[in-house]
Amino acid sequence: MFIGLCLGRVILETFRPSKSLFFVRWEAFRRNILGLWSHARIFHQSSTMAKSKFEYVRLFETEDRCLPNSWIVVRVDGKGFHKFSTEHDYEKPNDMRALSLMNKAATSVMEEFKDICLAYGQSDEYSFVFRKETQVYSRRSAKLSTNVCSLFTSAFVYYWSEHFPSSKPLYPPVFDGRTVLYPSNQNIRDYLSWRQADCHINNLYNTTFWALILKAGLTAVEAEQKLKGTLSGDKNEILFSQFSINYNKEPEMLRKGTILVRRKVPVALPDGSGTREKSQIVQLHTDVIGDEFWNENNHLLTIS
Amino acid sequence: MFIGLCLGRVILETFRPSKSLFFVRWEAFRRNILGLWSHARIFHQSSTMAKSKFEYVRLFETEDRCLPNSWIVVRVDGKGFHKFSTEHDYEKPNDMRALSLMNKAATSVMEEFKDICLAYGQSDEYSFVFRKETQVYSRRSAKLSTNVCSLFTSAFVYYWSEHFPSSKPLYPPVFDGRTVLYPSNQNIRDYLSWRQADCHINNLYNTTFWALILKAGLTAVEAEQKLKGTLSGDKNEILFSQFSINYNKEPEMLRKGTILVRRKVPVALPDGSGTREKSQIVQLHTDVIGDEFWNENNHLLTIS
Amino acid sequence: MFIGLCLGRVILETFRPSKSLFFVRWEAFRRNILGLWSHARIFHQSSTMAKSKFEYVRLFETEDRCLPNSWIVVRVDGKGFHKFSTEHDYEKPNDMRALSLMNKAATSVMEEFKDICLAYGQSDEYSFVFRKETQVYSRRSAKLSTNVCSLFTSAFVYYWSEHFPSSKPLYPPVFDGRTVLYPSNQNIRDYLSWRQADCHINNLYNTTFWALILKAGLTAVEAEQKLKGTLSGDKNEILFSQFSINYNKEPEMLRKGTILVRRKVPVALPDGSGTREKSQIVQLHTDVIGDEFWNENNHLLTIS
Amino acid sequence: MFIGLCLGRVILETFRPSKSLFFVRWEAFRRNILGLWSHARIFHQSSTMAKSKFEYVRLFETEDRCLPNSWIVVRVDGKGFHKFSTEHDYEKPNDMRALSLMNKAATSVMEEFKDICLAYGQSDEYSFVFRKETQVYSRRSAKLSTNVCSLFTSAFVYYWSEHFPSSKPLYPPVFDGRTVLYPSNQNIRDYLSWRQADCHINNLYNTTFWALILKAGLTAVEAEQKLKGTLSGDKNEILFSQFSINYNKEPEMLRKGTILVRRKVPVALPDGSGTREKSQIVQLHTDVIGDEFWNENNHLLTIS
Repeated sequence: MFIGLCLGRVILETFRPSKSLFFVRWEAFRRNILGLWSHARIFHQSSTMAKSKFEYVRLFETEDRCLPNSWIVVRVDGKGFHKFSTEHDYEKPNDMRALSLMNKAATSVMEEFKDICLAYGQSDEYSFVFRKETQVYSRRSAKLSTNVCSLFTSAFVYYWSEHFPSSKPLYPPVFDGRTVLYPSNQNIRDYLSWRQADCHINNLYNTTFWALILKAGLTAVEAEQKLKGTLSGDKNEILFSQFSINYNKEPEMLRKGTILVRRKVPVALPDGSGTREKSQIVQLHTDVIGDEFWNENNHLLTIS
Repeated sequence: MFIGLCLGRVILETFRPSKSLFFVRWEAFRRNILGLWSHARIFHQSSTMAKSKFEYVRLFETEDRCLPNSWIVVRVDGKGFHKFSTEHDYEKPNDMRALSLMNKAATSVMEEFKDICLAYGQSDEYSFVFRKETQVYSRRSAKLSTNVCSLFTSAFVYYWSEHFPSSKPLYPPVFDGRTVLYPSNQNIRDYLSWRQADCHINNLYNTTFWALILKAGLTAVEAEQKLKGTLSGDKNEILFSQFSINYNKEPEMLRKGTILVRRKVPVALPDGSGTREKSQIVQLHTDVIGDEFWNENNHLLTIS
Repeated sequence: MFIGLCLGRVILETFRPSKSLFFVRWEAFRRNILGLWSHARIFHQSSTMAKSKFEYVRLFETEDRCLPNSWIVVRVDGKGFHKFSTEHDYEKPNDMRALSLMNKAATSVMEEFKDICLAYGQSDEYSFVFRKETQVYSRRSAKLSTNVCSLFTSAFVYYWSEHFPSSKPLYPPVFDGRTVLYPSNQNIRDYLSWRQADCHINNLYNTTFWALILKAGLTAVEAEQKLKGTLSGDKNEILFSQFSINYNKEPEMLRKGTILVRRKVPVALPDGSGTREKSQIVQLHTDVIGDEFWNENNHLLTIS
Repeated sequence: MFIGLCLGRVILETFRPSKSLFFVRWEAFRRNILGLWSHARIFHQSSTMAKSKFEYVRLFETEDRCLPNSWIVVRVDGKGFHKFSTEHDYEKPNDMRALSLMNKAATSVMEEFKDICLAYGQSDEYSFVFRKETQVYSRRSAKLSTNVCSLFTSAFVYYWSEHFPSSKPLYPPVFDGRTVLYPSNQNIRDYLSWRQADCHINNLYNTTFWALILKAGLTAVEAEQKLKGTLSGDKNEILFSQFSINYNKEPEMLRKGTILVRRKVPVALPDGSGTREKSQIVQLHTDVIGDEFWNENNHLLTIS
């Protein structure tokens, strides 16, 4: 170990090779010499219950590093949240407590993983976008999805009572997770557009569906029947003519979902002598399908 | 969709092909016809904000089905639990509240996933063994690891107060997860032996280390120094001669970890007329390295 | 490099850890220190055209090691061989020259890769079964499939003139390749049974189809029409009643395909004083679906 | 099958969804309904040797589709060509016959795969760059690498006698293959720069090394010793002062390798009335590290 460290240091300081490739090699090297060493140590101990005899099973684990220079998205999705929302009396069509809890959990994830440059959430799902060049967990796919998914779930339960003060969840809620790669800037923009279009379509449907039930007294089956085959324009028309709802005036958080990004904000210095800049996670509810957001936030798509 | 279902039904009932292959094909078929259908539906709606334009990004998701006829292990591991245990005043060397909370969370996972036939836990980790033939989530690796990991984490936070009644966690705890395949019965036994040998080695070390600190007043550095290079026998000797601790009399849960298996137990009928059998998850703390456990539980390694 | 080698040697000789795991670690270690070293060397050279600046692209290559302790099958398949066989006047329904060329190419592959314990060929395909424990190319999937596929193709062209003396191929023939894993002995047996059953079904069909054309003067469309919906028994009946062909008397190579295995055969010593044993590749055309072959060759399924 | 086709046709014609996603779904659908159908058919036949009983083994094959919207490189590499070149009396440092045979084999590959937009070769290796959007073999990694590798090998043996007229190869030559993804235009340019820089470094070394041996009469060991630690400038100096060789005047094919691209060339019409454009594969030996080549061939990096 020591020899390995020294050797590495020497090479590092003498030649200063290109950083990223060197880093990867050094990491692999470090882990391997560690492996050899621990191997040797175990044998030296000659434990009566030789763990090393079984240790070969580690070789069955597979590498799952994500392709370099690609956007990594980890999306978490509520498992059985249709049922969960009913059992927990979520308000229909949208429950602001639930959405703010989702945003809180996502903020926890983003505070932990500095390489997440943007997150997008709607309904019971949240997508986390890691910088193209991130080296978190050596870009290992399962490490990324399980860590993000576990922290999101953990924060969701942990902060539940801040958003639903009157009751505990009836059982532990679950989110699944997946890691997906997007090579180009256009691809990652299209991914986010896809999720925001999904938000729009579902929310317009749900807003109309629940207005028909809660305000016009239809049953769920009747409401579904009435909406079958309708286009966006039809639903806008039903909302406006029957319920005097201008859909475009509905809260942006519901129509557009929530975007989390980091912003430099001025913070007052403790001695009152002025302010300093601090990075903070802010919530936006703007359109990400058009160009405007990306023009205003072009640092997001540029390698930092 | 309807045509697809009918067609499938007809084929199914007429010819009764081998079940497993048919199932896989049918699933794929069902999903594809669903996909075609939803595709068509979206276009039919001709939404002004065409979600379908972006939907191609779904093609970037990858298949990650596990090799059939292999044991699937999902292992969850506490992230930064050395720090977490210190910050939450875990008793040293072992905190029974923490271990029983781990067992509770693992039991929740096993109650949800009927195809987990055995789970093994020690320290801040738990391994879940799925039956070789399981078709849960079509054996998709990320689905398995994230769902198990999320439910374990969720249950850990959810049931925290039952095990640590006096305090809330200081922050949301996190567990990572991984999926590993083991082709043969010997491999899966060796995997479990590896984890139990790890439990033994660590617990013997920790028991001695903390005895030196808590009972002999050594500092952490002094204790580490004293144990450097010692073999199992040396540690047993230190425990016995200095602290009158017979390590083999220590609680089995600490020395062996916890095995969760399903057992048929008799349950009294409500009318008092007798009992019926019910499957229940039980905790064992026995040796899984030798043959005895496997001889007594040979149904575990047999295809059911 | 030198320090690395020495260090490795010392660890190796002092502690003698379990061979396989150690080997893997050592290999990884060796490659990494080599990597570090070559990295350093390149920089030391400070070439005007720094290759190292671009070398990061190597990191885009992915690991594709096969799960340990599983049978590895590499199957090669003729690309467009229906057309190829017509253009090269293959005799119908079977061309013995083509089949013997296939067997020759497969034998070349098996002579090169000592860890192939069995190969099975029929029509324009050949399957190569590597021992469960093989470490060839560190079990890297693409290395295995491309090397086997390239050697098979190369030998097929190379030995063409020995089997088709009168003509050169009209263009370079192509075979694709794939690597598939089978965890259990039953799985690998079923794989081979699948291919042999395929051989049977196709050969019975083709034998009848071409008899109808070549002997009864039907057109291809008429022959196809006549065979539509027929069962095995029907085809046997047509062959026997119309053409006096007892299908079960057809050459076994056509009905069963070709199995290549290694056999110890006695070889005369040069001085005439006796014989010594030598391993040789022999061709069999027996049934591999039943138990008999496997009972007689049970060393094939046992770890050597 | 028929119902499936009709249904697909109806959906297709009615709604005209976005082509690429639809195509993928349709393909999957088609294959699945085919699968169901063949499944059913096999059972219907009730063959005495039920192939379908074993057919489940197909489920052990894994999906290996390449990430969409990424450059796909398949590189083939001579196996043991140091030995092969010695045994076949390749001229040193470069054998023009061998290089032209490599170029011929690569041209065969490029003629077959229209989606290869550029190939780069040097020494005993060739890299084939598929268009970012290619759908060849549904982007399946093993299909791509084995087909390219097999055709390259096949053509190498097939065309051997045109380049080495006096002798047959002593044994079948082998090339391995690998598939690597590169997400961005910069990455694919850097990949090609890496290979060309490798060509430069090796060729300068080999030119000097063999001049020392063939012209100055050194042994291989002496030549190696003399070149140890030398920089590019040193080698250029040795060549010039000792052998009056101006390295920069050496043939470009040797210093830069060979680039294959498609070019529209005018072809005379048969009736002599003029010319028409035809796509042809041309060999270039220019620098691909700088911008000039890419500025002149910017269609290569643009989605067609």
